[in-house]
Amino acid sequence: MKQVGLAILLFASFCCAEESGSFQPASTNVWGAEYPRVDSADRAEFRVKAPDATKVRLNFWSGPKLDMVKQPDGFWAVTTPPLVPGFHYYTLIIDGAETSDPNSLAFFGGGKDASGIEIPEPGSTYYSAQDVPHGQVREIWYYSKVAGTWRHALVYLPPNYDTETKVRYPVLYLQHGAGEDETGWTKQGHANFILDNLIAAGSCKPMILVMAYGYARRAGQPAPDLTGKPFGSPEMRRAMQEMVAAFEDDLTQVLVPYIDANFRTIADRDHRAMAGLSMGGMQTFQVTFDHLDMFSYIGGFSGAAGALVFGNQKFDVKTAFNGAMADPAAFAKRVHLLWVGVGTAEPEGMRAGLVGLHDALEEANIKHVFYESPGTAHEWQTWRRDLKDFAPRLFQQDGK
Amino acid sequence: MKQVGLAILLFASFCCAEESGSFQPASTNVWGAEYPRVDSADRAEFRVKAPDATKVRLNFWSGPKLDMVKQPDGFWAVTTPPLVPGFHYYTLIIDGAETSDPNSLAFFGGGKDASGIEIPEPGSTYYSAQDVPHGQVREIWYYSKVAGTWRHALVYLPPNYDTETKVRYPVLYLQHGAGEDETGWTKQGHANFILDNLIAAGSCKPMILVMAYGYARRAGQPAPDLTGKPFGSPEMRRAMQEMVAAFEDDLTQVLVPYIDANFRTIADRDHRAMAGLSMGGMQTFQVTFDHLDMFSYIGGFSGAAGALVFGNQKFDVKTAFNGAMADPAAFAKRVHLLWVGVGTAEPEGMRAGLVGLHDALEEANIKHVFYESPGTAHEWQTWRRDLKDFAPRLFQQDGK
Repeated sequence: MKQVGLAILLFASFCCAEESGSFQPASTNVWGAEYPRVDSADRAEFRVKAPDATKVRLNFWSGPKLDMVKQPDGFWAVTTPPLVPGFHYYTLIIDGAETSDPNSLAFFGGGKDASGIEIPEPGSTYYSAQDVPHGQVREIWYYSKVAGTWRHALVYLPPNYDTETKVRYPVLYLQHGAGEDETGWTKQGHANFILDNLIAAGSCKPMILVMAYGYARRAGQPAPDLTGKPFGSPEMRRAMQEMVAAFEDDLTQVLVPYIDANFRTIADRDHRAMAGLSMGGMQTFQVTFDHLDMFSYIGGFSGAAGALVFGNQKFDVKTAFNGAMADPAAFAKRVHLLWVGVGTAEPEGMRAGLVGLHDALEEANIKHVFYESPGTAHEWQTWRRDLKDFAPRLFQQDGK
Repeated sequence: MKQVGLAILLFASFCCAEESGSFQPASTNVWGAEYPRVDSADRAEFRVKAPDATKVRLNFWSGPKLDMVKQPDGFWAVTTPPLVPGFHYYTLIIDGAETSDPNSLAFFGGGKDASGIEIPEPGSTYYSAQDVPHGQVREIWYYSKVAGTWRHALVYLPPNYDTETKVRYPVLYLQHGAGEDETGWTKQGHANFILDNLIAAGSCKPMILVMAYGYARRAGQPAPDLTGKPFGSPEMRRAMQEMVAAFEDDLTQVLVPYIDANFRTIADRDHRAMAGLSMGGMQTFQVTFDHLDMFSYIGGFSGAAGALVFGNQKFDVKTAFNGAMADPAAFAKRVHLLWVGVGTAEPEGMRAGLVGLHDALEEANIKHVFYESPGTAHEWQTWRRDLKDFAPRLFQQDGK
């Protein structure tokens, strides 16, 4: 019975990860995979089978790019220098083909299911599962009249949502970055554990998180034909603007009403926040400033005002967002929180845009919070820290 | 601002899938990926970038293995013969390295995040999202004293679970196969849509589905060292038996009580079913026959009695499972449903085991249902059909 044998083999493969010296299999591995593994100095050792390849390269998206070395057994191996703690995307480039590592769980980034490795941060328990009450993450499917399709979103409900059936909760809409999807904030970001831990410590209000799919095309709208259109061309910018606009309409006209109808929310602007990372930050600024009747808390994690992206022009506080900030006192009263964050190790162009926004807001006396994550790049460790700083500031207008 | 440019590029990549002739991008693709694509004759066309590779092979796990052909632009391409409708796992073998296709969403199978392609089945709407009330799939994390770890499971709750707060529901525990994980039944199987559609049609009782992670190791138990132990060796069989036993204890001592404590279940054996595919079917038979005080509905989808796996001996109805079937009339009264299914195109060894079980049950007058899925292999289309046949037979003892 060959197939039964196969089942045993597959089955057995799940029980045999070994630990070696101070190297331990990464927590992001599939069960049973010994590699990649991480030592106490935060070095990671990779090993991948490619017997007939002539070149294999380890490609960290925000980290080292290293040639792997062929071993006599047909595997290729390399050990990295010490890595920054946190979650890092990577791929393998095998004879020019960019692929994922079968030893790693898949994490959606860069427009594909890519590989990732978690480097532990000593002493940081805020984003891991602890012995505290746990909320639930629910998958929802809603039909969008804007997009003309069923759309998928994830919803985190705080602990005791099911048992305390009279309590209503504020909502934070939390968006992923470009190339990622609605699974990013839980799989890569551990947003559910961050909220569980903050709520258990009494550091933030119990709240609902809604993680939507950040891409949309209007019903009946054909895919734009960008063949031959150069990068950054007007056609490409227009396609992007149309997409953000479709997402904005889906979120505000379909998803928010769906959430308010199907969960015990407090359905007003004082109890509705939005934040997002990178592209999601840009979307957040566009959506919230277009709909200040719906949102009163705004967070940009390594990404913010669309003007910075679309125009490269200096951010003009007086005229931006139809003059919403023209009167700083009125703005501070209307918007309970304007929050902008960036990692100190982010690429200079990106960092400069966010610092420039902060400076412009500062100069114009616009009340806001500016947070810098020490030593982290345009990566999830920055955004985990952002959420940890941002969430406790939400929904405090009712008093603690 | 190079990084902003990158964001635009990534962003734009999500809006540009094109359709060509009768070929359409597969529904299992990442958004924006034109390939693989499927035509009306169920042929699939693949295209992958590997400019420096010398050999690229398309590897369907239950289907064709085809050499891809290098194109002048550094891509490799191939078109398959017509494929059987349903979901098919595949990988790419690039110069000996088995990798996933970046154009495909990831589906956990074979112990890794692999690729998959959906070939539409004309007229089959039972496993797709329809305009009917939708249940929710929830992620839960529970601490297992058996495993000494936090464990993840998925729970489907039927439509109106949140609004009809007095109603309690029966529960079906539904297990994945070897090499898969708790995400298989929703991502590959569409179990949530199958239940939504059956419930909407009045064809099955509203029920809760619990999809657990099918691997476990006891707290403090080291990974077995199988170095040098040949395939199918006593050591490997023992490791597998220990793992199934740990899973059994986790399910019956931790997960079932957790589900009954946290969801509105009807917590008795008359309202508790278990089924699983392949390895999950084997686990189902072991768990349910060891705990007939907890379960009264049993389903084996292309996998069943552990004796078939562990012993290769003939299944002896009189002595199997401590004689639970020795008295056919008493067994039929105690077990409301014993259900076994297999696809007609499954590998002969596997098919023979299931047919042999059916024959032995038939010969011994053990009441059961035997279902054959026409034309499908050891794949998800078989198991979707299994669930569609199995679920309507559950929990009917209270009358319709």
